[in-house]
Amino acid sequence: MRCDVILVPAELPEGAAEGKAVAVIDVLRATTSMVAALDAGARDVVPTASVEEATRLAETLGREHIVLCGERDGQKINGFDLGNSPSEFTAAAVQGKTLVMATTNGTTMFNRVKPSSAVCVACVNNARAAAQALAATGQDILLVCSGKLGRFSLEDAVGAGMVASYLAELAPQAEFTDGALLAQALYQKYRKNLLRALKAAEHGRYLAGLGYKADLAYAAQENITATVPMLRDGRMVRPESAAGA
Amino acid sequence: MRCDVILVPAELPEGAAEGKAVAVIDVLRATTSMVAALDAGARDVVPTASVEEATRLAETLGREHIVLCGERDGQKINGFDLGNSPSEFTAAAVQGKTLVMATTNGTTMFNRVKPSSAVCVACVNNARAAAQALAATGQDILLVCSGKLGRFSLEDAVGAGMVASYLAELAPQAEFTDGALLAQALYQKYRKNLLRALKAAEHGRYLAGLGYKADLAYAAQENITATVPMLRDGRMVRPESAAGA
Repeated sequence: MRCDVILVPAELPEGAAEGKAVAVIDVLRATTSMVAALDAGARDVVPTASVEEATRLAETLGREHIVLCGERDGQKINGFDLGNSPSEFTAAAVQGKTLVMATTNGTTMFNRVKPSSAVCVACVNNARAAAQALAATGQDILLVCSGKLGRFSLEDAVGAGMVASYLAELAPQAEFTDGALLAQALYQKYRKNLLRALKAAEHGRYLAGLGYKADLAYAAQENITATVPMLRDGRMVRPESAAGA
Repeated sequence: MRCDVILVPAELPEGAAEGKAVAVIDVLRATTSMVAALDAGARDVVPTASVEEATRLAETLGREHIVLCGERDGQKINGFDLGNSPSEFTAAAVQGKTLVMATTNGTTMFNRVKPSSAVCVACVNNARAAAQALAATGQDILLVCSGKLGRFSLEDAVGAGMVASYLAELAPQAEFTDGALLAQALYQKYRKNLLRALKAAEHGRYLAGLGYKADLAYAAQENITATVPMLRDGRMVRPESAAGA
């Protein structure tokens, strides 16, 4: 088994994810919010690459049947039901619903990793469970950091390092690429206080400035859930639903 | 002052280097070899983006006046005088000569950083001196890792982290981006034994397999020189020559 970490989207050439088990990571906040939404009872989450795609899809599926959520520059999109803060994804807001989600970095990655054998979502909240799900596939593993407008982001690399560190325990014989070694080193540096990494990160500081400080504390919670959303027919679903699909 | 680290070439959009002081880093082995070549008495080193550009330039300048050097897949290029091993850049081979150098990753970066206010070359061998030269410009600083065919490489990030750590001492008020924080964390992990990082790196393992183990040991030597090659009119020269230009 080989474990690779994609630090910025441009490191992932077309088709490179083929036949691999992929985890998309966007700690602040898309993948953290997706996990929160499914844990709060959402039926599924459809990640879209743009606001336009999200609104078009909402019309197709029937606006009343879906919850439109997402952000631009960290803020809720005009006319959308929810933004991208995990605290918004309460049972009252999402239970039994299909969410259509448009975020700047995280949701746009899903199109690029479609040729993979399996795509899941990871964050600090579900890192151990994500590592177990990935290892169980027996495939080579690709941890994909969403980054920030094409640039590297600290919090995603810390999240990838956390998953990679669990993988190193689960599969000690696995080969770790330079990116995977780097992510693990970064996680080791911050592991005693992951919130410190989120607060040091550029996007963490930006979100705190917008008043989303509580989102950083939420996103820094380790292994609070075993939910690992899986991509099935363009939708992120809970694994039990995935198995039944 | 802001200190940013570009982890992979694609993180550097067109024009992003404008007005900044840039250090290009390719620890294994282009920038290590450039520093070695100038220390061995080479007149200057012309980095080229391709083998074709290098051979064309050799014809223009007169094949007998220049030393053609470089690698493809780590090996000396057919018909070239030297490869890309720092041990080849002896006084006997390069003193007083103009070197035209074509490497896979390192030399191709120079075209992309041309709009910078100052471009120098850094590696483990000259990291402290490079940090001092960069800090002295008073400009925002960009440490550019050459990587490996567009992918992240561990040894370049360790080198960038070493330079960034010296910059943090020289300019404690400087702002460090996510990439710069990451590189510093990586350097901290390996600082007690940088050779360990080079041996763990994919390209280090590849070169060792080709028989270039001694190059890893050479490249891992910290601050053995104060030579910081500077780009002037498309050529890397020693700073004293640069000042006179």
